[in-house]
Amino acid sequence: MAYQIFAEDKLRNFTISIFLKMGCSAEHSELAADVLITSDLRGIDSHGVARLSGYVRLWEKKRINSSPNIRVIHETPTTATVDGDAGLGLVVAPFAMKVAIEKAEKYGSGWVSVKNSNHFGIGAYHTLMAVEKDMIGFAMTNASPLVAPTFANERLLGTNPMCYAFPAGKYPPVIVDMATSAAANGKLEIAQRSGKPVPEGWIQDKDGKPSTDPHELKKGGSLLPLGSDRDHGSHKGFGLSATVDILSAVLSGANYGPWVPPFVAFLEPSDNPVGEGIGHFLGAMRVDGFRPVDEFKFHLDNWIERFKSAAPISPEQGVIIPGEPELWAQQERKVSGVPIIDAVCDDLNELAERFRVGRLRSED
Amino acid sequence: MAYQIFAEDKLRNFTISIFLKMGCSAEHSELAADVLITSDLRGIDSHGVARLSGYVRLWEKKRINSSPNIRVIHETPTTATVDGDAGLGLVVAPFAMKVAIEKAEKYGSGWVSVKNSNHFGIGAYHTLMAVEKDMIGFAMTNASPLVAPTFANERLLGTNPMCYAFPAGKYPPVIVDMATSAAANGKLEIAQRSGKPVPEGWIQDKDGKPSTDPHELKKGGSLLPLGSDRDHGSHKGFGLSATVDILSAVLSGANYGPWVPPFVAFLEPSDNPVGEGIGHFLGAMRVDGFRPVDEFKFHLDNWIERFKSAAPISPEQGVIIPGEPELWAQQERKVSGVPIIDAVCDDLNELAERFRVGRLRSED
Repeated sequence: MAYQIFAEDKLRNFTISIFLKMGCSAEHSELAADVLITSDLRGIDSHGVARLSGYVRLWEKKRINSSPNIRVIHETPTTATVDGDAGLGLVVAPFAMKVAIEKAEKYGSGWVSVKNSNHFGIGAYHTLMAVEKDMIGFAMTNASPLVAPTFANERLLGTNPMCYAFPAGKYPPVIVDMATSAAANGKLEIAQRSGKPVPEGWIQDKDGKPSTDPHELKKGGSLLPLGSDRDHGSHKGFGLSATVDILSAVLSGANYGPWVPPFVAFLEPSDNPVGEGIGHFLGAMRVDGFRPVDEFKFHLDNWIERFKSAAPISPEQGVIIPGEPELWAQQERKVSGVPIIDAVCDDLNELAERFRVGRLRSED
Repeated sequence: MAYQIFAEDKLRNFTISIFLKMGCSAEHSELAADVLITSDLRGIDSHGVARLSGYVRLWEKKRINSSPNIRVIHETPTTATVDGDAGLGLVVAPFAMKVAIEKAEKYGSGWVSVKNSNHFGIGAYHTLMAVEKDMIGFAMTNASPLVAPTFANERLLGTNPMCYAFPAGKYPPVIVDMATSAAANGKLEIAQRSGKPVPEGWIQDKDGKPSTDPHELKKGGSLLPLGSDRDHGSHKGFGLSATVDILSAVLSGANYGPWVPPFVAFLEPSDNPVGEGIGHFLGAMRVDGFRPVDEFKFHLDNWIERFKSAAPISPEQGVIIPGEPELWAQQERKVSGVPIIDAVCDDLNELAERFRVGRLRSED
């Protein structure tokens, strides 16, 4: 696939300029751009600037509010519910994580359920805010329905990701950041563009039968939960996805299940919503609420070393610690720049024209 | 398989009598028996009285302390570390959950990491303690190493279960209680007894190759993480299992990874432990820390109804809400009694003879 490579700063400044044109404050524009650029740097291309035009289209339809009054509407010393006021999830989730961290600083832990929000980018961005304070970070979000529960032929759940992050000592943090479906939607999109079949166990067709055609999702098919089928534990993937949905939305007052609003502007949200916007759940726990930080980090380093040195099945591929591939991408892209495929470049330059900001050019 | 059926009370009284003979206090004996009998009632036969003789053998080897001084050794208003003093996990985990609930009552949430414990039975028992107080319950535990991380040919993780439980209104609680491996070890044991092959994706052989022979685990093979292989997300099952291991043991000071002591007395624990005993992680969050309880329950009931009414792939099998099969078993077994296979009956009656308590007889 043809692509151009951009320095991080160029992408960042461009992205900030678009958010400013949408009417976001300078602070929100910088934060939202940071979430997207961090995703591109970490190699999660599906959650970076590729999403920018989608946010603009939702803003045009007034489904994203560029100047939200994000606020805590209910709380105890260690729990809170945040109303995102239909803002970008990219700014609502960091607000909620800050509330969780402040509560953790005072009481050991903090937990925030969020309603009336939008797509929050990558969970790792938010959990790393906690890790920087020697806390364990938790982040989850529900998402537009694409996944069928075990035995169902109906899309009732999003890819509902969970993220857990732990601060290590001499090693980078351990970051588990995963869709609770067998495959993330981004992987399916790659297969759709390349026209290649996907492994059996990722999707089912409109009749609920196994399929390897990545286009089935557009023809009434569904993604499958982690585990793929009942024999291999798809009821567990369904259970995890349900957990994310309940903590993010039933607990906060957001929409859940099939009522979660679509991420794309060309699909309308439900006429009979059961809540407001989409929901997230964020948490932070102080490591020293359990044991001294240096002891924890010593043992997490030891855990990492032991798992890295596990006997491999094949000498070419050892165990990968959760979070390593994203860190490797970040280290490389910080230096060599971020590859952006031509379709996304075109998309961004349409935004440039429309908002009369400078076009993105790799050669500048 | 041949079995006998016992009334709940008969099994309970027998189990209490054995724990008393081990030197457990009356209170601990009743509690430990309640955890085991609840498991049998809920149809989780692998975690009920079938485990009793194993606990006795560990006690004989002084790896279980029947009169532990279970105590909080570190805490903040909402976090704590508990030292289980090598007690039965069946009494250590409820102690820890009580601490979590007390903290949640005062501050909204409570989180307890536990070291120096043993097998804790079913997670659902502990999370239901929170649900009874209109809280959301969390329970995890690490376990003896049987599972190989993605790309590894070495058992480094237990089946490390996670349990999440949510109180509903007119419906029973939603309870997600799942091993983070593709199949729980109990399912493999059933296949071993019946001599039937297991689905590909549950285990790998001693060379790390896929296998369907349930006996491979005894010949150097491993269980596989949820997701089964890299293409189907086994790195996610590995990540979840790692999360359980870190929260339960790296955080508390218990053993983690391959150092977790074996649950069976005939295998010796490591000579160079990295911590004490096995670890758990328990948590409770007040629902009304986020929104009024009746609102939450109204929406969770609505969630349940919507998922139950999902279009099924086949008219014979609709969506199963997490926790339903265990509840159905409990309703039936409360009335009709608990079937115990002959091998387990023999095991229990050996204990009866040894401790000079009355034999278990179904006909009494």
